[in-house]
Amino acid sequence: MKLVTARYQREMFLGRLIEDQNVVFNLSKAAKEQEAAFPETMLEGIQSADAFLDQIQQLSEAFQENLLFTYGLDDPDLEWLAPIPRPAKNIFCVGKNYKDHAIEMGSEADIPEHVMMFSKAPTSVIGHEAEIPRHEGVTDELDYEGELAVIIGKKGIGIPAEEAMEYVFGYTIINDVTARDLQKRHKQFLIGKSLDGSCPMGPCIVPKEYLGNPHELKLVTKVNGEVRQDGHTKDFIFTIPEIIKTLSAGTTLEPGDIIATGTPAGVGKGFKPPRLLNSGDQIEITVEGIGTLSNKVF
Amino acid sequence: MKLVTARYQREMFLGRLIEDQNVVFNLSKAAKEQEAAFPETMLEGIQSADAFLDQIQQLSEAFQENLLFTYGLDDPDLEWLAPIPRPAKNIFCVGKNYKDHAIEMGSEADIPEHVMMFSKAPTSVIGHEAEIPRHEGVTDELDYEGELAVIIGKKGIGIPAEEAMEYVFGYTIINDVTARDLQKRHKQFLIGKSLDGSCPMGPCIVPKEYLGNPHELKLVTKVNGEVRQDGHTKDFIFTIPEIIKTLSAGTTLEPGDIIATGTPAGVGKGFKPPRLLNSGDQIEITVEGIGTLSNKVF
Repeated sequence: MKLVTARYQREMFLGRLIEDQNVVFNLSKAAKEQEAAFPETMLEGIQSADAFLDQIQQLSEAFQENLLFTYGLDDPDLEWLAPIPRPAKNIFCVGKNYKDHAIEMGSEADIPEHVMMFSKAPTSVIGHEAEIPRHEGVTDELDYEGELAVIIGKKGIGIPAEEAMEYVFGYTIINDVTARDLQKRHKQFLIGKSLDGSCPMGPCIVPKEYLGNPHELKLVTKVNGEVRQDGHTKDFIFTIPEIIKTLSAGTTLEPGDIIATGTPAGVGKGFKPPRLLNSGDQIEITVEGIGTLSNKVF
Repeated sequence: MKLVTARYQREMFLGRLIEDQNVVFNLSKAAKEQEAAFPETMLEGIQSADAFLDQIQQLSEAFQENLLFTYGLDDPDLEWLAPIPRPAKNIFCVGKNYKDHAIEMGSEADIPEHVMMFSKAPTSVIGHEAEIPRHEGVTDELDYEGELAVIIGKKGIGIPAEEAMEYVFGYTIINDVTARDLQKRHKQFLIGKSLDGSCPMGPCIVPKEYLGNPHELKLVTKVNGEVRQDGHTKDFIFTIPEIIKTLSAGTTLEPGDIIATGTPAGVGKGFKPPRLLNSGDQIEITVEGIGTLSNKVF
């Protein structure tokens, strides 16, 4: 099951991506046709978790015979939004969660012993196929970071590692676009990580029941068709349960919270000389079982 | 003019603190009495900025003769909330914005050349007189940081320093409570700065028209009545216009955004030996022209 937030002819809806038919099914419209109450936003849906998924399953079955309320993926009136277009707080991000990335950004000494966490402002979120602003004059070192992101489904604090997966709603892909010069200049990462449009997210959320083991996923980032990151979530330094345990020790997690799990080796800054982003560059991040998040630098 | 969010007999309202009478005036009720539309939340009010302030002035004049809809400050049914109880994103915080504090946390080498910025999760926000959890077992080093905070009033990106003050709605006080051990262990500050209840805010917002020069304010923090921080905002390394210019260079600021401007010398960790917080400690932060934010560690 792949859940999307999108617009059709400028009207926002919650949808289900049906890949074998290359269409998006408009769940919001289908629910309206049934005169059934349905969440207005993905955040609301996540808050009602199981009931939301059950209703999606029921709507899918009710309408699967015909192709009512579906749009082809190449329909020009279809516009992707981030699955959660406006998170209710900053996106939590784990820094240096793959050894080879920590080393490419410095040395063995940069491999963290404890979860390192910073955040991206919610104003940085954009959807699949939206343009990433180049921010010329603000940064000379715009870079990409392909990441698996966890969507929290249940409120909790002091969550033990062994219960952590119960608090997960599902998964998506994030491009943790980073201004390397600002990241370095301002020491704490917030400013260099929060430029407008620097958090492409999507194309969909896959509820955890439909993904399998999140620690066994290939993650590939291409820039203009060339593979730059060829990673695997089995190489996490800190697993998802460890991250959730650490973050939630004293901080309440809420449904709809987003945790980006870090990026593998192969970011632009890691090359010698660096291969940073320029206007026109196309970044495609593919995570096994989720899909491909594609954005062009504007 | 001092604006508050509070509850009376568990019902939330927007109010105006009238200090010479030791009362809070319930603006929400007064507006209802006039059958006038009025913002439900401070965030909504800030979004309508001038109209909001005009309406408050009009309501104050209409009801000033009698003491209708006012509650004494010692009324047990009155509960303070943070002026913005649930910010729509993390609180922006400037690190090390006073030289003497940078030095007490390290050495002259720690005085930053560029604005250092991190964030606190919105789940950390509590009001005046609410209890700060001690988080025993999570941190052994809970510390206080008295700070002036800026409330943004207008959306903007790429804001020049000379126009920055036009984007300010007003000011409040924040206690940037910090778990020093977590701050150090996790390198990026987010985790150590985001414990539940670690962002006491209030007691009120003073709109900028009513405060005078925010760079000429005494800031005093007392713990159990003893002065620990005796600072002055004239000692900022980075002024408010510089902070807004730097943050907004590539990041859109929105009405209701909160920027804590950093803390002067005298935090618990700066003492030798450190004088950190324990259950029962009362922290009072007074900023000239705004008031006193008081919270006890639970």
